[in-house]
Amino acid sequence: AGPPGFVALDTATVLDYCAGKASIADALGGASTRKEWSAKEVGDGNINFVYIVTGSGGNAVIVKQGLPYVRCVGEAWPLTQERVRYEAEALQTAHGYCPAHVPVVYEYDAPMSVIAMRYLEPPHIILRGGIISGTIYANLASHVGEYLATTLFGSSALKVGCEAQRRARAAFGQNEAMCALTEQVIFTEPYAKAENNHWTSPQLDDAAKALRSDNELKVAICALKNKFASDAAALLHGDLHTGSIMCTMDTTFVIDHEFAFYGPMGFDVGAFVANLLLAYFAQDGYDGDRAKQREWLLSCVKETWGVFASRFRELWNEEGISSDTSGLAPGSLFSAAAGAEGDVDAALRAHQDKFIDDVWKDTLGFAGAKMTRRIVGIAHVADLDSIGDADARARCETNALRCARRMILEAGSLSVDDVCAMAKELRGGA
Amino acid sequence: AGPPGFVALDTATVLDYCAGKASIADALGGASTRKEWSAKEVGDGNINFVYIVTGSGGNAVIVKQGLPYVRCVGEAWPLTQERVRYEAEALQTAHGYCPAHVPVVYEYDAPMSVIAMRYLEPPHIILRGGIISGTIYANLASHVGEYLATTLFGSSALKVGCEAQRRARAAFGQNEAMCALTEQVIFTEPYAKAENNHWTSPQLDDAAKALRSDNELKVAICALKNKFASDAAALLHGDLHTGSIMCTMDTTFVIDHEFAFYGPMGFDVGAFVANLLLAYFAQDGYDGDRAKQREWLLSCVKETWGVFASRFRELWNEEGISSDTSGLAPGSLFSAAAGAEGDVDAALRAHQDKFIDDVWKDTLGFAGAKMTRRIVGIAHVADLDSIGDADARARCETNALRCARRMILEAGSLSVDDVCAMAKELRGGA
Ligand SMILES: Nc1ncnc2c1ncn2[C@@H]1O[C@H](COP(=O)(O)OP(=O)(O)O)[C@@H](O)[C@H]1O
Ligand SMILES: Nc1ncnc2c1ncn2[C@@H]1O[C@H](COP(=O)(O)OP(=O)(O)O)[C@@H](O)[C@H]1O
Ligand SMILES: [Mg+2]
Ligand SMILES: [Mg+2]
Ligand SMILES: [Mg+2]
Ligand SMILES: [Mg+2]
Ligand SMILES: [Mg+2]
Repeated sequence: AGPPGFVALDTATVLDYCAGKASIADALGGASTRKEWSAKEVGDGNINFVYIVTGSGGNAVIVKQGLPYVRCVGEAWPLTQERVRYEAEALQTAHGYCPAHVPVVYEYDAPMSVIAMRYLEPPHIILRGGIISGTIYANLASHVGEYLATTLFGSSALKVGCEAQRRARAAFGQNEAMCALTEQVIFTEPYAKAENNHWTSPQLDDAAKALRSDNELKVAICALKNKFASDAAALLHGDLHTGSIMCTMDTTFVIDHEFAFYGPMGFDVGAFVANLLLAYFAQDGYDGDRAKQREWLLSCVKETWGVFASRFRELWNEEGISSDTSGLAPGSLFSAAAGAEGDVDAALRAHQDKFIDDVWKDTLGFAGAKMTRRIVGIAHVADLDSIGDADARARCETNALRCARRMILEAGSLSVDDVCAMAKELRGGA
Repeated sequence: AGPPGFVALDTATVLDYCAGKASIADALGGASTRKEWSAKEVGDGNINFVYIVTGSGGNAVIVKQGLPYVRCVGEAWPLTQERVRYEAEALQTAHGYCPAHVPVVYEYDAPMSVIAMRYLEPPHIILRGGIISGTIYANLASHVGEYLATTLFGSSALKVGCEAQRRARAAFGQNEAMCALTEQVIFTEPYAKAENNHWTSPQLDDAAKALRSDNELKVAICALKNKFASDAAALLHGDLHTGSIMCTMDTTFVIDHEFAFYGPMGFDVGAFVANLLLAYFAQDGYDGDRAKQREWLLSCVKETWGVFASRFRELWNEEGISSDTSGLAPGSLFSAAAGAEGDVDAALRAHQDKFIDDVWKDTLGFAGAKMTRRIVGIAHVADLDSIGDADARARCETNALRCARRMILEAGSLSVDDVCAMAKELRGGA
């Protein structure tokens, strides 16, 4: 299977493959050092194969290959390799907007469905693991806030104009196969009887059943699905959970853009917020005193949003006032220098306030949807799954589900402070 | 200019052109009758050339050709002929959904930028002209409501599913050049100083100036522009004013889909509503007693919305409950037969209520935007322009502008009855 020219790599053949690609071979110390190279497969993801290829002098490169099916299921769940093109383009685009927080791509090989990119060397680890082990990442919120602001603003019609954005959307494509997965596992199955669903049973049986007959929630989740399906505001990561972020105490990188598509900004912001809150609710299932990390997780929610909002506004002020009629904030309406009349500063502020507030409302709804699906849907998170005691885990999950429901239903009225206060209260106030 | 193979037609060459296309020649009685044929150019539109080609036995065909520029401006305003492809596809798609109210296409010739379609024979006239002359079209609302419901539902993810809709969107394309015109002339220029703008002066000078420094309105219009630019919910007509509708007392046809794109449903509904309300406000500038027609225009607004909403819901009930997870109303959530739990009928009703209510809110905002631009922007409507007395015209226009402003700013709270009552009140209660 696979397209013409496709061959599935392994730890042996990947070395020859790298030697044959100048951009990769150079990063490994040159093809002439080929004999010193070695590879190991480290894909802990569910979908693809990821090789660390180590060259001479300790240089290393990541070679990620997508197969024509879902790795953890096998050929029984085919998946189009088009996703690798989406991932490569989104990675490269995001790196352009935010080089500090996105690995550089050395090579994208379409027929082989391969992306070669910078190896994020130790001590980089997957953020989810770091959080589970109790680490506090003091720079995380500002880095992720910066990533979100630069990528979402950069690909928006605010920055590029409506007409150019339509062209960019047409050129990028729809990534409909990966979006269909999201539509299935996030916006549908958790609220239905579905073979894929599972949960801590019997403790959560009633909660899961309640989801399936919660009319208010069903309506709200369908509205979110509709927004996901039809709002093409910015080029999203599409799967920005804490397993798609690698970090050290000082650095933060976003990887794994294979779900990228033009969608609603709040979907990316919400994914990150959801995973912080899941980590927060999981804490009661762990041994030891994690009060400090718990506080940090909530402050990280607040700070991520704060950094995102202020950086987004800053970019807008600097690069979002268009000189033509194609922008979402044309100078002819908002810049006195361009002839706009009235109190243009107040007008611009009000425009920005409303725009950013709408992103926040979407953020809340999408975050709630993501939290819910991680507890009753197909794919859970290690934060909760690593809690061995089922009763303890169920208590954490119940709190998270309650928080999620209110985030979805009260998205129109909750501030970020409200959400953090509510999360605290739901887990008992401590 | 124009693509390879393009030649601008005239009333002479269009006959040979038709003889050379079997589908057209057949509709004209066969190529062998070529000697009996005649053509005249009737394009009263601003953009394209439209020929009525009459064949043997009175058969006739419409041949519409797009040139690489805007007809009424000339080569100084180039316009991509890609628009003809969008128009042809949208016409054919809409005819598929609603054959009773969209002319059939006989031929689309890409290199020649030609669409040949059914000739809407007399007494079909352009609706705007009929309304201006005082006619009451008793079936108009139900026909346009049906057109709107079938085309907007038919192309929505409710009907086809999110994944298939993404593919359809990719295949259709973005029509970014025509959308850019809308973004310019509807969502930007009326609120800015722009050479294109004009209005009844000096009577409306203050009102026009007020628009340029109305911060609330600027913010709201930018939010509408954002929705126009990013919400790809359904394949729209994109320019559904009363000059894009031809009718008799019994029949109604929608033509001129060259602005078609995947956009927010309320944009099409709002275009029609806006033009009914503009006609309503214009009435005070006409001689004679038009009380009956005035009442009819408001009832037409109500009935169009009523027919749209109930027909849309009916289609949804019949064809909008998906058997897979890709739909916006999956059976697994909303159909007991498909295993959905809880009071699924109430859930579905609530889902539909919210969805349709959101379309109404958008309808109001877009309608207000369209009314405003027809009074201070580049292209006005004959309903108002035909009022010779400038003071009388200005009074009508002032009322319409006030109504439009409230529709935009109070879109969240006005029902269709509220809007009609408000329109009545603004023009003095009679
Ligand atoms: N650039 C990189 N540097 C270091 N490790 C990486 C890099 N990219 C991926 N990995 C490792 O490979 C794992 C799987 O990568 P990921 O892109 O998430 O694949 P999948 O699409 O299968 O989820 C990551 O969790 C991480 O451990
Ligand atoms: N199918 C048709 N049957 C009869 N007349 C038509 C038909 N299509 C267009 N016309 C006439 O030609 C005019 C211009 O057509 P239209 O499609 O609106 O062109 P434009 O894109 O230039 O606005 C219409 O107003 C109408 O008078
Ligand atoms: Mg991954
Ligand atoms: Mg992945
Ligand atoms: Mg679990
Ligand atoms: Mg026209
Ligand atoms: Mg036209």
